[in-house]
Amino acid sequence: MPHIPLDEKLPGITGILNYRLDTALPIRELTHILLRGNSTLTQGERELIATIVSHGNECKFCTAAHTAAADLLLGEKETTDSIKKDIALSSVSDKMKALLIIAKAVQVSGKNVTSEMIDQAKKAGATDLEIHDTVFIAALFSWYNRMVDGLASVTPTDPAFYSRLATILAEKGYLSSENRYAGLTK
Amino acid sequence: MPHIPLDEKLPGITGILNYRLDTALPIRELTHILLRGNSTLTQGERELIATIVSHGNECKFCTAAHTAAADLLLGEKETTDSIKKDIALSSVSDKMKALLIIAKAVQVSGKNVTSEMIDQAKKAGATDLEIHDTVFIAALFSWYNRMVDGLASVTPTDPAFYSRLATILAEKGYLSSENRYAGLTK
Repeated sequence: MPHIPLDEKLPGITGILNYRLDTALPIRELTHILLRGNSTLTQGERELIATIVSHGNECKFCTAAHTAAADLLLGEKETTDSIKKDIALSSVSDKMKALLIIAKAVQVSGKNVTSEMIDQAKKAGATDLEIHDTVFIAALFSWYNRMVDGLASVTPTDPAFYSRLATILAEKGYLSSENRYAGLTK
Repeated sequence: MPHIPLDEKLPGITGILNYRLDTALPIRELTHILLRGNSTLTQGERELIATIVSHGNECKFCTAAHTAAADLLLGEKETTDSIKKDIALSSVSDKMKALLIIAKAVQVSGKNVTSEMIDQAKKAGATDLEIHDTVFIAALFSWYNRMVDGLASVTPTDPAFYSRLATILAEKGYLSSENRYAGLTK
C-alpha cells in the first residue's frame, strides 16, 4: 500500500506525479527532453541507461517500464537482458558499453565515476554531451527510483501493463497529460 | 578537473546547469517550487532535507551550499551541525526529526523507507504532502549530488563562496538566470 493516498488507477510513478501536478510538469518536461529530444544517442540507447540504473536500484516498476520501452524501441529483447547480466559482454556498441558503465557507477554514487571510465567512453567515440546526458539520465532515474519505492507506489505484476505503457512512452514520450495516462489502469 | 569542459567561473552545479540550458530550466523550476514555493515546511526546514541528503552522499559542494543556505534561513548554525551528527538527538522538532529520517533513508534507497518511519512522521503531525515533498526533495538531491560528483565539477574551498551562494539561494531561490550566477566566481 502506498505511504500516502495515491490514485489506485495510476500505478508506479504516474500516481505520484498526479499527486502534485506543479512539480510533475517540470520533471516530465525534463525527462522528455533527455529521453526523446534531439540526441546523437538513439531513444533506445537512452532507455537502456534508464533501464540499467533502475535495475541497479532494484526498482521493479521502473525496471519493467524502461525495459519494455527499450525493447520496443530496439525491436528486440536481447539487449536489455544482456546489459543486466554483464555490460562488458552485452551486445551494445563499445561506446554504449562505456556509457552504461558510467551510468551504473552514477547509480551507486557520483563519486564512483572515474577518469578511466570517462577516457574509455571518449576513446570509444562518446562526445562530451553524450557523457553529460548519460550522467544526467542516470541521476534522473536515481530520482525516479527513489520516488517510486520511497512512497511505495503500486507496482503492477501483469506484463501486459508494461507493454501498454511502453507503447505510450515510445510513441508519445514523457510529456504530461492526465488523458495520456487515463488508460493506464492496473 | 571536470570530466567534460565546464565554465571554470561557474563551480559546482552551476557550471553543469550552464552546460545544457534546455535541461537546466525545468530542473531549476522544479527545485524552486519544492524549496521556495508555498509549503507548510519552512524554507529552512526544506534546506535541512537538502543538507542531510547531500551530507549522506558526501557531496562536498552540495553539502556546503545547502548547509550555508539552511544556516542563513534558520539564523543559526547549530541545527545543521546537530542533524549531521545524530538526527534523533538534534534540536529540530519531532516532525522534522521523522521527516529527516525518511530523507536519510531515501538517500540510500527508496526501499529503505519503512511503514514505521511513515507512521512516526504522521504521529508527529506530518501531512501526506509534507511526506511527499520530503521524499521528492531527498530524491532530487540524490540527482544533484550525482551530477556534481559524477561530472567532477569544481568545488570551491573558500567558505566565503558558499556564504555568497547562500545569500543568493535564500533571497532569490533557484530560478534560472545567467546573470544571477555571473557573480559566483571561484
